[in-house]
Amino acid sequence: MASEPGVRNQRQWLYEELAARMASMIEKGTYRPGDRLPSVRQLSKQQEVSISTVLQAYYLLEDRGLIEARPQSGYYVCARPTGALLEPEISSPEPDPSDVSVQELVLMVLRDTLKPNLLQFGTAIPHPDLLATAKINRILASIARENRLEHAMYAFPPGCEDLRTAVAQRAVSAGCSLAPNDVVVTSGADEAMHLCLRAICRPGDTVAIESPLYFGFLQILEALGLRALEIPTHPRTGISLEALRFALDHNPVRACMVISNFNNPLGSRIPDDNQRELVEMLARREIPLIENDSFGELYFSGDRPGVAKSYDRKGLVLLCSSYSETLAPGFRIGWTAPGRFKADVEWYKLTTNVATPTLPQLAIARFLGSGSYDHHLRRIRRAYAQRMAEMSRAIERHFPAGVRVTRPDGGHVLWVQLPEAVDSLELYRLALRIGVTLAPGNIFSATEQYRNFIRLNAAFWSPEAEPALQQLGDIVARLAR
Amino acid sequence: MASEPGVRNQRQWLYEELAARMASMIEKGTYRPGDRLPSVRQLSKQQEVSISTVLQAYYLLEDRGLIEARPQSGYYVCARPTGALLEPEISSPEPDPSDVSVQELVLMVLRDTLKPNLLQFGTAIPHPDLLATAKINRILASIARENRLEHAMYAFPPGCEDLRTAVAQRAVSAGCSLAPNDVVVTSGADEAMHLCLRAICRPGDTVAIESPLYFGFLQILEALGLRALEIPTHPRTGISLEALRFALDHNPVRACMVISNFNNPLGSRIPDDNQRELVEMLARREIPLIENDSFGELYFSGDRPGVAKSYDRKGLVLLCSSYSETLAPGFRIGWTAPGRFKADVEWYKLTTNVATPTLPQLAIARFLGSGSYDHHLRRIRRAYAQRMAEMSRAIERHFPAGVRVTRPDGGHVLWVQLPEAVDSLELYRLALRIGVTLAPGNIFSATEQYRNFIRLNAAFWSPEAEPALQQLGDIVARLAR
Repeated sequence: MASEPGVRNQRQWLYEELAARMASMIEKGTYRPGDRLPSVRQLSKQQEVSISTVLQAYYLLEDRGLIEARPQSGYYVCARPTGALLEPEISSPEPDPSDVSVQELVLMVLRDTLKPNLLQFGTAIPHPDLLATAKINRILASIARENRLEHAMYAFPPGCEDLRTAVAQRAVSAGCSLAPNDVVVTSGADEAMHLCLRAICRPGDTVAIESPLYFGFLQILEALGLRALEIPTHPRTGISLEALRFALDHNPVRACMVISNFNNPLGSRIPDDNQRELVEMLARREIPLIENDSFGELYFSGDRPGVAKSYDRKGLVLLCSSYSETLAPGFRIGWTAPGRFKADVEWYKLTTNVATPTLPQLAIARFLGSGSYDHHLRRIRRAYAQRMAEMSRAIERHFPAGVRVTRPDGGHVLWVQLPEAVDSLELYRLALRIGVTLAPGNIFSATEQYRNFIRLNAAFWSPEAEPALQQLGDIVARLAR
Repeated sequence: MASEPGVRNQRQWLYEELAARMASMIEKGTYRPGDRLPSVRQLSKQQEVSISTVLQAYYLLEDRGLIEARPQSGYYVCARPTGALLEPEISSPEPDPSDVSVQELVLMVLRDTLKPNLLQFGTAIPHPDLLATAKINRILASIARENRLEHAMYAFPPGCEDLRTAVAQRAVSAGCSLAPNDVVVTSGADEAMHLCLRAICRPGDTVAIESPLYFGFLQILEALGLRALEIPTHPRTGISLEALRFALDHNPVRACMVISNFNNPLGSRIPDDNQRELVEMLARREIPLIENDSFGELYFSGDRPGVAKSYDRKGLVLLCSSYSETLAPGFRIGWTAPGRFKADVEWYKLTTNVATPTLPQLAIARFLGSGSYDHHLRRIRRAYAQRMAEMSRAIERHFPAGVRVTRPDGGHVLWVQLPEAVDSLELYRLALRIGVTLAPGNIFSATEQYRNFIRLNAAFWSPEAEPALQQLGDIVARLAR
């Protein structure tokens, strides 16, 4: 028998309220990382609520990565950054557009990521244990066994309808009302960004970007002959709207590009209000916004963060994402909802490689339809929150004073500001000798900023990595002198 | 016990010689299409050779698509074009470079190819029954079940080594000595061509192309902002070297692009001597040659035709191909051996979509390593030879006088020259009404040539299609008046 709406809402209110109170106590240090929380029975008595309400509240806190259940023992507060390290300052890149040239450095870093036996803090790839590879491979195998003829043929743009429908359905949680026909399937989010840029820009055009920016997107700009105008960012809220407004007033900008949630490398999330203002500011000038949301599902607490696309009234926002972060990078399945540029994006997709392979599209669509995705996401969110927190604390323990580090609420990368004297390229080379990769700051800028920054991938953190991180901290301290 | 080399060579000489004599009798009309050949026993007596020699000879002729075995009946001469229809004339496109704009027309044609219940003479896709989908899907399923972690991760450029090794091994039969490291895996041959063009050209550059040319390649030129310089072609030998030499002397050409074997739509094959001369002519001017060989394995008789790449001494030939024609278009697996442009091609691949999906690469590599490929190719070559011959004869029967048609020695498309008065776009629209698609000639040129040409895909020919082709012929006759 279904509960009546009123009753269900009241119950939900009860456990959400309880969860909020517990979260607040954790934040204020009443319960510190590692502390055991009251047992379900104790809390039920204390708070005069039902056992089921307490369980629901703890489940919610677990889901947000704040606490964890330990078998036969109870609930414990997860390790979290203590905040002893400051966050990096607001970035201040070069104020003028510039040609992009990161090719050589990036290739060096990528080559090193292919070497086995290195501790891969230098990539931003998800940890293989936190993908759904096994499950999706089983689905792929089962689709392949069906052996239907259309599976062997081209899935011309916009791509397989099943997948586009699944994408549109999930976009609701990010605040977007998309129809399957608004979506174009691409071979990964990078291809989505590439196609959107080609649909909008011509060589020599200027694109306003967040600085620092994921080097893969800088590479795309470079390969397309586009100029980057780097906009300052705040380590928590991303692109500075004031700086962007000033830049737009003084430069002929063809497009703007942001990673709205859990930016790579910055970890920033553009707040909802800023997202709305960003969309409106650009819309007034008829400037398209290319928005990447590859990390949006990897939030550590609260609800699924929204996207700027949800404020798009003029079809000027081109939302891009993929399943590489959460499911299977090797499948190369991404998508874009390119608004009014859809016909052009499809045209560039067609003339780039005709179509994205059919079977991987169908396998991912079937997985998304199976209902397992949310369960999988809860598991990996908890794991990334934990690893990120532990790695932050290890940096705090082992890196010299003056080091700053970001405090992202999602994703799995940390952006670390080292003392001025440290050259991250030199650090890169010394780290390789102790079997550790890292991403030097320079490759996240078109104008050689961030020489004393590094990006670390917390996805590959484990307690066993602590001695290596300690060694890295020692090297940093030596270079800082 | 292995035969001694001398004995084996003598036996081979005997059956090859016998096959050559029989082929000559077929060509001269001693045995006409449909005729029953002497039984193996009869021929063995007549020619005083062993039964096994006759069997070998018949097997060779079968392999070349000249004869076919009918169960419990014997060997019969395959249906072949009788030559009653003339071949199209040497093409004479506009002598100046021009911008490319075929977008709208092509999209219309592609949309129609997605409609079920139409007789698909308008595509150039292989027939689903003549792919190895079932087998490769089984392999894919079995690899997916192995569930190895690296299968879920990126196969960064140049791509999976197993596949590159298999590509290099097979290239030997086309006269090429490639190392696995010379090869870059791409998402289909179209992506290979796209990446090669980007590695060489900048927007506004001029590319010398065969005219007519596969519209997909024209689209790529258009999408990249390149200009096409259309070079006249001969329906049997492809690009006219004289015309090309003249064009190179009078235009700043950045690259040249050809389909060496069984050109789409022309069916032409550039003879070995012409291939060598083409490579040398371009090498003297330091002009790269982008060579497509997607249809090279679909020869009807004799040996695997060679490629221009085999004459490349300066790393200036960029050979591109795929497994879309022979194995599984939906897998989107192609490759290029881009000579001295390899680093740039890898860079553009990386910045376009990071990597081609891993599992399809491994599945095709394993199929190629299984030894089934040659058997599969023999089967589909025979089928395409038969369908092409039957369709040619049906055109001869049902199309009005004055129609010309190509006589390709491989592939599966026919290029048909209609009377001057026929507008192929009008024919296209009328054909749709009787449930038939065709490719109008205009889309094979950047300069609106070939208004009275059509391309027909013999892959979808079957005797049941004859009434539809007859209706089509009637419409052509009506339009020709």
